[in-house]
Amino acid sequence: MDSRTGLPVVGMVGGGRLVRMTHQAAIALGQSLRVLVPAADDCAALVAADVHVGDRTDLATLRAFAEDCDVVTFGDERVPVEHVRSLAVEGVTVLPGAGTLRYAQDKRAMRERLTVLGIPLAERVPPDRELAALVARSPFGQVAAYPVVRTVRGGTVPGDEVLAPAPGLDAGLAVEAQRLAIELASALDVVGLLAVEFVEASNGVLVNDLVVGPHDSGHWTIEGSRTSQFEQHLRAVLDYPLGDTSLTASAVATASVPSGRQHGMSVDERLHHLFADDPGVKVHLYGTGGTIGHVTVLGEDMPAVRARAARAAVRLAGVEH
Amino acid sequence: MDSRTGLPVVGMVGGGRLVRMTHQAAIALGQSLRVLVPAADDCAALVAADVHVGDRTDLATLRAFAEDCDVVTFGDERVPVEHVRSLAVEGVTVLPGAGTLRYAQDKRAMRERLTVLGIPLAERVPPDRELAALVARSPFGQVAAYPVVRTVRGGTVPGDEVLAPAPGLDAGLAVEAQRLAIELASALDVVGLLAVEFVEASNGVLVNDLVVGPHDSGHWTIEGSRTSQFEQHLRAVLDYPLGDTSLTASAVATASVPSGRQHGMSVDERLHHLFADDPGVKVHLYGTGGTIGHVTVLGEDMPAVRARAARAAVRLAGVEH
Repeated sequence: MDSRTGLPVVGMVGGGRLVRMTHQAAIALGQSLRVLVPAADDCAALVAADVHVGDRTDLATLRAFAEDCDVVTFGDERVPVEHVRSLAVEGVTVLPGAGTLRYAQDKRAMRERLTVLGIPLAERVPPDRELAALVARSPFGQVAAYPVVRTVRGGTVPGDEVLAPAPGLDAGLAVEAQRLAIELASALDVVGLLAVEFVEASNGVLVNDLVVGPHDSGHWTIEGSRTSQFEQHLRAVLDYPLGDTSLTASAVATASVPSGRQHGMSVDERLHHLFADDPGVKVHLYGTGGTIGHVTVLGEDMPAVRARAARAAVRLAGVEH
Repeated sequence: MDSRTGLPVVGMVGGGRLVRMTHQAAIALGQSLRVLVPAADDCAALVAADVHVGDRTDLATLRAFAEDCDVVTFGDERVPVEHVRSLAVEGVTVLPGAGTLRYAQDKRAMRERLTVLGIPLAERVPPDRELAALVARSPFGQVAAYPVVRTVRGGTVPGDEVLAPAPGLDAGLAVEAQRLAIELASALDVVGLLAVEFVEASNGVLVNDLVVGPHDSGHWTIEGSRTSQFEQHLRAVLDYPLGDTSLTASAVATASVPSGRQHGMSVDERLHHLFADDPGVKVHLYGTGGTIGHVTVLGEDMPAVRARAARAAVRLAGVEH
């Protein structure tokens, strides 16, 4: 318990954009997220007050980080499962637990487990047929499911697109994807978020991969859902009742902005031009490495919303078009 | 310029909830807000990385804080005007400037200036007739106006309510309030936000007070407008084109939650009950002193939305009802 706020202390292992945006959501809940980042200039460390710099694969580092935390969770699932198990034995509340993390890390074990559960697996991933279903689950098994989204890689924009709700998706398949994601969250004893990636086939949806914790395919929820994935993850690990997952608009599109292709203008100059071009685009910038940010557009008509998001992403990436 | 992000450095003077929520908005813009707070346990200091603790009325403290800042702005307008003038002379970009701050601080000078401008002033503030108009203005004079809201003090909830758009307000009066706020922002050379408090009279709107910078009457914009007041203030002082001020729902209600009346349950327990009662309420918690937070509800029907916000505020305040 944080004596300054009267609220539980949440520690999140792993830096980067997912932790940065979780901290942003934590502020509204009265929280001051404690973060364990690999370097002092990590984009999460640049915006948080309670920062530990250290190696997430070192048990002593994790143990020191977890001290005084009421719950420890993950923005990066690549934490040794045996360390998570050790912390739990020592009395640390770690959510999700080692049993869940194992399946997120070991794809072979995950696929074997899904086969035992009778859940259909995808043999390959055809372009333009990718879907994702995001669900949150609390320690006592309350589950909240977000609308199923379509993810598009290698389209006309430099990064990935996410379209919510998935345009052109058969309503029965959407329900089936949500049902499978909920079933998986229960079967794997997930606490927090579970993102399940599907391939849309002619006769149903096939599971391609699963990720525990906040996921890039859920960034649209910041403005596009009544409860963002980041707030939802915190509510789940804090054992608060989960929030409303309703859409706030008929159509929501996000596009990620990769780094490394910029030329000419600085990020600051590109922001000027983007904001002048479309005052309704929402921008989320994380830093200078890998993916530098994403953009989100909300509206009534998916083709128009998607086009605006793509245009904004191209402007922010500094790519000629 | 922050070499880690390639973006300008914004410094904000003054701690508390307004600075805390501005930092939250700054994260999305790639910023890491530098804050000057009165104490290390200030609620803004608990969530930000670049924290200076010091006295905002001391020129040497302000000077050290402003070093390397591309722009300095205010979450608390009670900074000596002569210090702001000194910093500007020394080459610091301070927005809004001393000329504007003077009128925000000196109510007599403000009323004299408004009289010269021919703007009608209120002699007293009758209950249930209070309105507020929020506008943002950029250094080059671009102005964005938010829908006019109704503020209710001493209603059925423990704190203040803000209803957006103002229910029952004559459309002509709403336009007149926005027009006067825009005129005032230009006349006082405001950069950033200006909140103008009005009294609704039978023959028009009368100015009661004005506040520069983010304001409690604008908290509804976090979820209720396409661009929050906090992001808008940053866009203005960074000289970015201003964002879309459209409503995201037909009716938005906020209620503030004062401290000091709680008994029995902890804040954490009250949060549990609130979230269980209404999964769609948005909560913003700041800390333990003064006003501990606010709640926001969005929907189609103002009476229903207002009732939900009031119910949530009562639950969060821990008041029997």
